[in-house]
Amino acid sequence: MSENKSSGERKTTRLRRMLNSPRLEFLMEAHNGISARIVEAAGFQGIWASGLALSAQFAVRDNNELSWTQIVDMLEFMSDATTIPILLDGDTGYGNFNNMRRLVKKLEQRGIAGVCIEDKIFPKTNSFLTGKKQPLCGIEEFSAKIKAGTDSRKDEDFCIVARIEALIADWGMEEALRRAEAYHEAGADAILIHSKKPDPDEVLAFAERWAGRLPLIIVPTKYYRTPTEVFKRADIGMVIWANHLLRASVAKMSAIAREIQRSETLADIESQIAPLEEIFRLQNAEELAEAEKRYFSDS
Amino acid sequence: MSENKSSGERKTTRLRRMLNSPRLEFLMEAHNGISARIVEAAGFQGIWASGLALSAQFAVRDNNELSWTQIVDMLEFMSDATTIPILLDGDTGYGNFNNMRRLVKKLEQRGIAGVCIEDKIFPKTNSFLTGKKQPLCGIEEFSAKIKAGTDSRKDEDFCIVARIEALIADWGMEEALRRAEAYHEAGADAILIHSKKPDPDEVLAFAERWAGRLPLIIVPTKYYRTPTEVFKRADIGMVIWANHLLRASVAKMSAIAREIQRSETLADIESQIAPLEEIFRLQNAEELAEAEKRYFSDS
Amino acid sequence: MSENKSSGERKTTRLRRMLNSPRLEFLMEAHNGISARIVEAAGFQGIWASGLALSAQFAVRDNNELSWTQIVDMLEFMSDATTIPILLDGDTGYGNFNNMRRLVKKLEQRGIAGVCIEDKIFPKTNSFLTGKKQPLCGIEEFSAKIKAGTDSRKDEDFCIVARIEALIADWGMEEALRRAEAYHEAGADAILIHSKKPDPDEVLAFAERWAGRLPLIIVPTKYYRTPTEVFKRADIGMVIWANHLLRASVAKMSAIAREIQRSETLADIESQIAPLEEIFRLQNAEELAEAEKRYFSDS
Amino acid sequence: MSENKSSGERKTTRLRRMLNSPRLEFLMEAHNGISARIVEAAGFQGIWASGLALSAQFAVRDNNELSWTQIVDMLEFMSDATTIPILLDGDTGYGNFNNMRRLVKKLEQRGIAGVCIEDKIFPKTNSFLTGKKQPLCGIEEFSAKIKAGTDSRKDEDFCIVARIEALIADWGMEEALRRAEAYHEAGADAILIHSKKPDPDEVLAFAERWAGRLPLIIVPTKYYRTPTEVFKRADIGMVIWANHLLRASVAKMSAIAREIQRSETLADIESQIAPLEEIFRLQNAEELAEAEKRYFSDS
Repeated sequence: MSENKSSGERKTTRLRRMLNSPRLEFLMEAHNGISARIVEAAGFQGIWASGLALSAQFAVRDNNELSWTQIVDMLEFMSDATTIPILLDGDTGYGNFNNMRRLVKKLEQRGIAGVCIEDKIFPKTNSFLTGKKQPLCGIEEFSAKIKAGTDSRKDEDFCIVARIEALIADWGMEEALRRAEAYHEAGADAILIHSKKPDPDEVLAFAERWAGRLPLIIVPTKYYRTPTEVFKRADIGMVIWANHLLRASVAKMSAIAREIQRSETLADIESQIAPLEEIFRLQNAEELAEAEKRYFSDS
Repeated sequence: MSENKSSGERKTTRLRRMLNSPRLEFLMEAHNGISARIVEAAGFQGIWASGLALSAQFAVRDNNELSWTQIVDMLEFMSDATTIPILLDGDTGYGNFNNMRRLVKKLEQRGIAGVCIEDKIFPKTNSFLTGKKQPLCGIEEFSAKIKAGTDSRKDEDFCIVARIEALIADWGMEEALRRAEAYHEAGADAILIHSKKPDPDEVLAFAERWAGRLPLIIVPTKYYRTPTEVFKRADIGMVIWANHLLRASVAKMSAIAREIQRSETLADIESQIAPLEEIFRLQNAEELAEAEKRYFSDS
Repeated sequence: MSENKSSGERKTTRLRRMLNSPRLEFLMEAHNGISARIVEAAGFQGIWASGLALSAQFAVRDNNELSWTQIVDMLEFMSDATTIPILLDGDTGYGNFNNMRRLVKKLEQRGIAGVCIEDKIFPKTNSFLTGKKQPLCGIEEFSAKIKAGTDSRKDEDFCIVARIEALIADWGMEEALRRAEAYHEAGADAILIHSKKPDPDEVLAFAERWAGRLPLIIVPTKYYRTPTEVFKRADIGMVIWANHLLRASVAKMSAIAREIQRSETLADIESQIAPLEEIFRLQNAEELAEAEKRYFSDS
Repeated sequence: MSENKSSGERKTTRLRRMLNSPRLEFLMEAHNGISARIVEAAGFQGIWASGLALSAQFAVRDNNELSWTQIVDMLEFMSDATTIPILLDGDTGYGNFNNMRRLVKKLEQRGIAGVCIEDKIFPKTNSFLTGKKQPLCGIEEFSAKIKAGTDSRKDEDFCIVARIEALIADWGMEEALRRAEAYHEAGADAILIHSKKPDPDEVLAFAERWAGRLPLIIVPTKYYRTPTEVFKRADIGMVIWANHLLRASVAKMSAIAREIQRSETLADIESQIAPLEEIFRLQNAEELAEAEKRYFSDS
């Protein structure tokens, strides 16, 4: 169980405190060690380990093309590199209740603070393929998965968030609320209500009817124009900026690659990119230089 | 052995052809699947898998803190995602001649086109620690490592590049040339002459005396202001832009993270980052959508 | 694509030839590098990489508690250590058609000769849990998975075997035959008909009605008393000894551990276990000793 | 930090108590999850994760052909499968002081109780190659590595054992004692004195002169005929049975493979191997069956 160095508080406890805080809290996406460190350095209090971004960095698709252990391996680097809590976007838990139990165990061992699972079916399929209702996991099966997760955690502050796909899959508001209620009863620590509409209306409607029975998390990737003030008034507990560092990196890497390819020189781009010293700083090179003095002193 | 889809030519053969071409060729750094794909999309003909960038993305140091298999695992994603050849910045080969043999075998299995090894000692130590002469690997030991590498490759076009650290380590020009000669004799396919000076003088002096006995590769990270025309006139064979995509991504991720943290909204940054569709495109999501139609047709 | 050293024939071709041979052929279980080498040394022509044995060696359950990449990693060691073909017991393909495509790609890269997939649902659940009919994968979905596998292989000799669980799941003989027909049409290279009865009657009945439309594979773990002559007369193509080396190792390790624990001495057991030299031989230590002479000659 | 379930005592504390106990204690070799579980089931109080056995199971050589993370990955399965402490045979620490620090961190995260490092040079070379004195790591460098290890552990009970190769490398008794003294001062928790002689004379001579300044560990692989009573009288603290389960498994797997290959039937060997039920028991299948009842209750 990882402790936060500065405060002595466990990362799990810290995430739980964020979920239950009266203020609107924010998680920022990261997908590898260096982006995680950048998130912390920017002042965020928590990290969203996005399934899309984790996959995309490897140039594979967000359809469980990575194995779950490849994800856990990357999370370990992210956790080692930071002192703020990480919430994993854990898809469906990568299988059934037993896979979920195993996942929780491995995440706890690596100092991850919580996992968010969604009520879809493994492996995830493309949401835009057909006009038909998307299949969702049965309520009882998904509730059992949540319960298996909470039963198996060793640290009671490890957070299990239930993500509801009913609005995205076009199953309607009543189904979404029914699921939220069931997942609450099964022991979820928070509800993530997802929407792909360009406005927040259905999310706000859900929030009103939900009435704060559990903390509510939203992901405004599609309704990004909505002022944050709206979320605060709606008593949303947490906002996730879900994939924006990956998208930032892709934009800039593409621009720089094209520019160097065209110009065949670095002279024009040196000032647009981080200096080498910034990379060394993010790797904590200084600590090693100090240690070398200490342990190489006599040789 | 991976083939280039479009041409049928092996990646190894393609890298070898670049090394031996009369034109000045360029490799661009990448460190994961998506940056590799960006390099190819920008029009580059080859990829430099930088040890610094590979390490830094995980937020660990470029001192063999990653295991060699963690590096090979990431290279596999890079190779799968691209059709242009990848040259690995393989440090010291991660041990002795036997580790080198094993490395070559594993790289060939993953479709990597070549490896560059440097005449330092495992694990690498910080070059800036002391004013003393840095230790280098013995010439005979390093030559044997090159020979072990060439002896063990199954594909004779797999490239083994010898990187000379004598100028960086302050052992002088004569030592650098002596080493180049020995590595040539041991079977290296090209020489990478490294320098940390802010101008290219020592590299150009080396090139003049080397007189093209083997293709010469340079890494102008520190002497980035030098016009590329100078390298062409000096009969340099290949220039490596060694860490610029990582540095591009760090600059942009830091800026965006700070901006979102400050403003608590996405509204201002959406236009500065890659759209989601660009991420899907780099993941080749369309191919899966097509395949789903084919294999889900009846369900 | 791995070649068999002695013959130049690819491992895939060799497995395909075994499947199509008029003689009864045998695969022996292995689960790691050293057991694979032992199988080859004993004179077997092919290896069965058992899902049960692969899992059990790590002390996890055969319910997809290992990730699919952890399995592929172990297979790589097994393939590197041997020159005979390996057929992977690949469960359900670890997901849907797209996971199957990815699996085939990764197996081909590692020199595995084929994969057997079974028509159950990911993750596998315990077959003994209830008296109810076990759920099976839909015929069309499973057929599409086979087709996705064959479509995505680069080496046309890579073998895809369809394992039918209908008898085990108590869906009856007609269903088993209907499935065999469908999987044949989908492109399977052989049919594995599984049974947990203590006698071979249902397997023999299946074989008779199947009448050799595709090669037939059986796994007589439960009906082990049946003389092999019976299988030959029934025109079975291949017999898999599915988990016997793992079980051999467990029996002996348990006995030796208890003996040493009790006696607190090695004196009594030294003659019962393999000499150290046998371990060195299986690691091919001699090759390295020779290489050290070659590459260390001057130092 | 892993706790022992039955006692609540940490594994690290338990290993430390064994090292400091007045009785002669024993560690038994294991190399994967199932052998680790067998060791515990036999009644041993601790496990030796042998470098030779760990490598050999993958059919690679004990010359750092496995990466250090491949070893850590296997140790995680061993640790998850058992409640008794594991001491890793950690070669040289897989590099310099910084690699050692990283190793200690990763071992602690996985619940490993301690690591033994030896004063050789990475990568290990064959001890039988020449008649010349084998190179050893410098005393100061190795002492710094021990110190780096102890400085970096978070759990002060994590054990760091210094293994002395001076007798094996033919550097003599005085050198061995000088090294033991230096490693003691650097903070080692115990000394492992290694010998390849067929009798224990030099080990006993060392023990006498060492006089119990730190607990002494021996590995009687070569002098296996020596009665354990001799070690007790010599005030040895711990005996490691270093590779006997691997050798047991190889002997039996070879015999069974040859027997089945020859006879083409299982009928003769079924009684010589562990029943399937024993494998299921070692995988803890029953716990999953119980859990399935709990979490599948309604479906």
